[in-house]
Amino acid sequence: MMKTHTRLASFSALTLAALLGVGMPLWAADGDQALLDKAKQLFKPLPESAALENTALTPTRVALGKALFFETRVSADGRLGCVTCHSPSYFGADTLALSVGVQGKVLPRNASTVFNTPLLVAQHFGGNRATVEEQAVKALLSPLAYGNTSYEQVEKKLVQLGYQPWFDKAYPGEAKSLSADNWGKAIGAFERTLLTPAPFDQFLKGDTQAMSRQAKLGLEQFMAVGCAGCHSGVAVGGQMYQKFGVTQDYWLATGSTPKEAFKGYDKGRFHDTKNEADAFIFKVPQLRNVAVTPPYFHDGSVATLPQAVRIMAQLQLGKTLSNEEVTHIVAFLESLTGNIPADFAQAPVLPVAPH
Amino acid sequence: MMKTHTRLASFSALTLAALLGVGMPLWAADGDQALLDKAKQLFKPLPESAALENTALTPTRVALGKALFFETRVSADGRLGCVTCHSPSYFGADTLALSVGVQGKVLPRNASTVFNTPLLVAQHFGGNRATVEEQAVKALLSPLAYGNTSYEQVEKKLVQLGYQPWFDKAYPGEAKSLSADNWGKAIGAFERTLLTPAPFDQFLKGDTQAMSRQAKLGLEQFMAVGCAGCHSGVAVGGQMYQKFGVTQDYWLATGSTPKEAFKGYDKGRFHDTKNEADAFIFKVPQLRNVAVTPPYFHDGSVATLPQAVRIMAQLQLGKTLSNEEVTHIVAFLESLTGNIPADFAQAPVLPVAPH
Repeated sequence: MMKTHTRLASFSALTLAALLGVGMPLWAADGDQALLDKAKQLFKPLPESAALENTALTPTRVALGKALFFETRVSADGRLGCVTCHSPSYFGADTLALSVGVQGKVLPRNASTVFNTPLLVAQHFGGNRATVEEQAVKALLSPLAYGNTSYEQVEKKLVQLGYQPWFDKAYPGEAKSLSADNWGKAIGAFERTLLTPAPFDQFLKGDTQAMSRQAKLGLEQFMAVGCAGCHSGVAVGGQMYQKFGVTQDYWLATGSTPKEAFKGYDKGRFHDTKNEADAFIFKVPQLRNVAVTPPYFHDGSVATLPQAVRIMAQLQLGKTLSNEEVTHIVAFLESLTGNIPADFAQAPVLPVAPH
Repeated sequence: MMKTHTRLASFSALTLAALLGVGMPLWAADGDQALLDKAKQLFKPLPESAALENTALTPTRVALGKALFFETRVSADGRLGCVTCHSPSYFGADTLALSVGVQGKVLPRNASTVFNTPLLVAQHFGGNRATVEEQAVKALLSPLAYGNTSYEQVEKKLVQLGYQPWFDKAYPGEAKSLSADNWGKAIGAFERTLLTPAPFDQFLKGDTQAMSRQAKLGLEQFMAVGCAGCHSGVAVGGQMYQKFGVTQDYWLATGSTPKEAFKGYDKGRFHDTKNEADAFIFKVPQLRNVAVTPPYFHDGSVATLPQAVRIMAQLQLGKTLSNEEVTHIVAFLESLTGNIPADFAQAPVLPVAPH
């Protein structure tokens, strides 16, 4: 029943106990059900839909939102779209430490994956965007993102590109269907379809064989060590704000450097609220697809997941994890990897002929 | 049998003749076969494959080439790949007048569609790249494109990104499978699959009903006016070099502006050869997918196809086309629009985890 983990150089007391059949962890033997019961208190499987209440994700809105998500000609240099930092080739992120915005400008923070984000408490590491819709609209005028100077300018570009009929079809009967507001709503509608169910969801729904033995051991340790104190809920995180660097300044462990945009180290929500109580407070990131969206943390300062797990335990919980614990927790985190949504991987044909 | 063209305000002598059944153009009545016979002397349908002689397009090479085509992290800012200027959303081009390279730098010329390009006599408007493979390799070190400083740097990045096993699989038995040379060969293999058969190919293969009546009239005029003198062959162009602006300086008709990169107006091949005989000599562009890849000419200075057709007739042939002739020729050019290759529209999953 139990296989030795040949890749591990040493055996922890836990593994040894399991080998001897004493002090069996929750998941062993018929303990899978106990592990599942415990996990269900902390986590929830992905819903079928992340639609806003009373707002249907109609095909025309989703199709328009997808087109706009991939549309690059609305940006100041004609080359940046949502898709630039949230690429189907890189699991809805870009794998850069710091993303690159319009005209080659470097952004001050790492781009998170766009998958499952409508389920989070807010958008951005600082949580300064309440919804995906608000994020999409405000990005249009960000000097580092789309770099437009006014919504009128954006709307004019969209008309010139031929999007008026698309908006009319998606938002019929509205006095002004083509608007920055509906740009946000349409992109939001598309993003709300980008959910990525993973083996962990199958497990939570009762299929205890959907996760590997190692991943289940990792899940138990994830809860035992205290990670689930913040990384819980439907997105395994993303539901609250916490100080990053509880036991020591985060940059001592992460190798983070001061950023000009922040006039020093990134102090998280403080930069939006100017409230000292918000210094170093960041939104707890979701962990869905974390294994396939390196590098890690708000500035992408850490390249690998095992290292990120170690640093989190140290900085947030004051714990030094063993190699085995890291390996198991990483195996659990890998069970949060879903499939890239098929519709997202299929590039839309955008209006190319002049109008 | 004959319908009047209700969208046309006036009838040309040709149309009137057709209505009266006298001096019937080639395509009318049973003249379709005569038009086809004439066209077959000037044009050829797309081949099944654009593979180099004695070089099989193996699935592993095509898959590697596709990954590298979409890979953006090899560029200096981590954001530019072949796909940047040759997007599946914009028919293998980017619809910008001038493309944007690495770090937001503006390129001096318009990006042509990548579809069917292996069939052209050379690559780039100046023809300074003999093959798609050479283009892909040299772009790596272009300061405006990928912006790398050496091929060693490129190869190191590819190893770090995890591409060694991909190259080993695609180029087995080679002492150094992961190399800039094989980067070019793999991307070339992928690009050689990007052929876009169109209604015109069906016509050339004998299905005379594959093109509309208007498009067939346009084809006849395209040959009669003289366009086919340069725009011939398998790609309806792309087989030779010609002076742009025979009857007058091109910028007087196109609104082209002097470019800093050229220290004045773009003089085409001259900038590569420094030979005055090459001044204003450009590769004749292919016309496949021309209707869906605006804007037009080497600097994207003309926005619409009818206008581009008019300018070409004026500048190259000294002819002023009637509105009807333009409409018909545009209809013919629209019959050169193929489908975006399915494999190209499907984003590849790239190695995202650190190695």
